[in-house]
Amino acid sequence: MNPEIYILGSSSATPTRERHPSSQILKIGSEKIMIDCGEGTQSQLIRFGIRHTNVDYICISHLHGDHYFGLIGLISTMGLIGRKQDLHIIGPPPLKQIIDMQIIHGGMTLKFDIKFYPTNPARQEFILRNASFELSSFPLKHRIHCTGFLIKESKKERHLNMEAVQMYDIPMSFFKSIKRGEHFIAPDGRVIENALLTSDPEPCKSFAYCSDTIFDPEIVDYIKGVNTLYHESTYMKNNEERASLYFHSTAEQAATIARMAEVGHLIIGHFSSRYDQLEPLLEEAREVFPDTDLAEEGEKFEITAKKRMLIHS
Amino acid sequence: MNPEIYILGSSSATPTRERHPSSQILKIGSEKIMIDCGEGTQSQLIRFGIRHTNVDYICISHLHGDHYFGLIGLISTMGLIGRKQDLHIIGPPPLKQIIDMQIIHGGMTLKFDIKFYPTNPARQEFILRNASFELSSFPLKHRIHCTGFLIKESKKERHLNMEAVQMYDIPMSFFKSIKRGEHFIAPDGRVIENALLTSDPEPCKSFAYCSDTIFDPEIVDYIKGVNTLYHESTYMKNNEERASLYFHSTAEQAATIARMAEVGHLIIGHFSSRYDQLEPLLEEAREVFPDTDLAEEGEKFEITAKKRMLIHS
Repeated sequence: MNPEIYILGSSSATPTRERHPSSQILKIGSEKIMIDCGEGTQSQLIRFGIRHTNVDYICISHLHGDHYFGLIGLISTMGLIGRKQDLHIIGPPPLKQIIDMQIIHGGMTLKFDIKFYPTNPARQEFILRNASFELSSFPLKHRIHCTGFLIKESKKERHLNMEAVQMYDIPMSFFKSIKRGEHFIAPDGRVIENALLTSDPEPCKSFAYCSDTIFDPEIVDYIKGVNTLYHESTYMKNNEERASLYFHSTAEQAATIARMAEVGHLIIGHFSSRYDQLEPLLEEAREVFPDTDLAEEGEKFEITAKKRMLIHS
Repeated sequence: MNPEIYILGSSSATPTRERHPSSQILKIGSEKIMIDCGEGTQSQLIRFGIRHTNVDYICISHLHGDHYFGLIGLISTMGLIGRKQDLHIIGPPPLKQIIDMQIIHGGMTLKFDIKFYPTNPARQEFILRNASFELSSFPLKHRIHCTGFLIKESKKERHLNMEAVQMYDIPMSFFKSIKRGEHFIAPDGRVIENALLTSDPEPCKSFAYCSDTIFDPEIVDYIKGVNTLYHESTYMKNNEERASLYFHSTAEQAATIARMAEVGHLIIGHFSSRYDQLEPLLEEAREVFPDTDLAEEGEKFEITAKKRMLIHS
């Protein structure tokens, strides 16, 4: 099954009547990763019927409130419903102390451990790897310590060619190592090459998250060729100066980054509360990168390997 | 105009599909006081069309998240929209550090000062007084440092009897002192008693807020005779043991406190997420104290001097 990204919130700075601050859930392999967790995210999970009991990873890009003020409430709720499995939190170093202080003074008794992974705003860093995905962070240029996240499916097992396996009479106990790519050595010493027994697995899908950031072509190296890119687009083109002043991007700039990085699909979000209608932002982005969608709350996007046609190349 | 209390949230512990965590706004004189500020309170303000620009006082009863996780988001929004006037925050001492840390690491630049007033969980304490109200806190018995709040309208000016004022030919420049209760001394030395010139003002209304607390008759002394009492009622009677275990109250216990304190009107709230229907809680409370209402989101209650009939006295 391909990874899927669920949009829980896409407002910048302050909530509006219609929109909530940033949060997304990436379903990848057997895992769910939450990326950013603005105020009210746990209510958005309830609203869209998404369980948080198996959210084991939460990535926080930076410590502006619209990206993390909902985290402590979610942790508190996880504690109240008796969660036991570890929660992995990835974010700027002070986040740990902010969480700890609220746990202590709120008298929270958690039955699970929080494993904290500090991000580094100075360079790309590998964070962790498991059976489903590998995660790294990379620097974004914003007003405070801020990182993006790059998440790739873990290397998949090769497909067994059952016909070949039967023909060479391979015992089942070797299937696991063969799916990992090993050759089979028969009892008589003959080597059966792995390529005869397996075919390539589905390509590993990748997703990059870039919020918040000024227009910055330096990030292209980090996100080159990802299948799906989420990039903030707080403003429209006529507010480009304002975007730059506050270290944000316009829809057109987000699309320019997508085109430069040759990604498969772009999702734009983090819309300023000044915009009631989002279609004009989408139009500006599609002028530059046609395969763009709006991060509207409740939307779900499949991350596929499909490469899409670019009109300006 | 009588004070009014607006209910923004009335859920305990975790939000539900229908209910948000604790928060209320008391409009009193020319002021607005927010009492508790659970996650999502700023969105509830938007939903009910209540401006926060003139909320200058925020009281936080205790540091369980359902009573204060929305505070930092509200402060952040106040900063973003350029608030300038002081914000007075009343709450447990560690709250100051929790706020400060998030302001610093979020790079928030506030153009207003936060004046912090630590509450004392050991005894009743006067907090502040202004032209509209006076505020004190009193101890509640909960699992952590927790206080209730008692808010009374400030002493009002006496009503001028215009007929008498004209008859005694009182110059207008003395109206202010006469409304404060002073006598008038005529140029010829005659003393005109204040009672001849004025009548009593409207009685000062009072409101007490008790959340969260175990059933505790000791609080009756602090809240005796208030016009309106908000008292938590997390559970129904058949969960009385659970209520006591977690230092909460049942609807019947809230009503018992209201009856003992001879208050005018009781509002119950902080309902456990297990209750879809709240009418049964209301019925249990009304058995003991008929003039009870549910703290349902969006409800507004006027605080009047009217004394109400009790069926069990």
